[in-house]
Amino acid sequence: MLNPIQHLNKAFENKVRLGIMSLLMIHEELEFTRIKELLQLTDGNLASHSRALESAGYVEVEKSFVGRKPNTLYRATKAGRSAFQQHLDALEVLIRQGRD
Amino acid sequence: MLNPIQHLNKAFENKVRLGIMSLLMIHEELEFTRIKELLQLTDGNLASHSRALESAGYVEVEKSFVGRKPNTLYRATKAGRSAFQQHLDALEVLIRQGRD
Repeated sequence: MLNPIQHLNKAFENKVRLGIMSLLMIHEELEFTRIKELLQLTDGNLASHSRALESAGYVEVEKSFVGRKPNTLYRATKAGRSAFQQHLDALEVLIRQGRD
Repeated sequence: MLNPIQHLNKAFENKVRLGIMSLLMIHEELEFTRIKELLQLTDGNLASHSRALESAGYVEVEKSFVGRKPNTLYRATKAGRSAFQQHLDALEVLIRQGRD
């Protein structure tokens, strides 16, 4: 029997990161405030997990000003999309195994 | 749009715990050594995560002697099975959303 967790990616283990990546798979890009609202997170929580995904090379961040206000945009990178796709596939195997 | 991570259970966030629970959904009971082998874990890693699942009431542990050797058996509790089922359902929603 295969190790059911072998292909799970540690970078996506936390549910906040699962949430960020799954949102960025659907949306081309999303603002920090929008992600925060959708996942009902605090600033600090979202900032720390998005920074971890950024340093893993899975998310890229674009900082700009809209008028006088700073704006932070997030996109999944190509590497992020394919790594998350593999993670979802591994989760699906685990789910099928976990079903009674 | 619903919060995609709302129904994910923090107790199952870690991939070792995902692995333990998914194995115990398929097998009525499993020995510590068998789980360790299947998930390719260290004693310490498995012990700490199974203890966390036990204190959450999701896993029960039976210690006995086989001859002179101590033996530790794990089973998912009824609460564990239903909580994990809900976690799998929430993961499935997230996976469907995450698919391109």
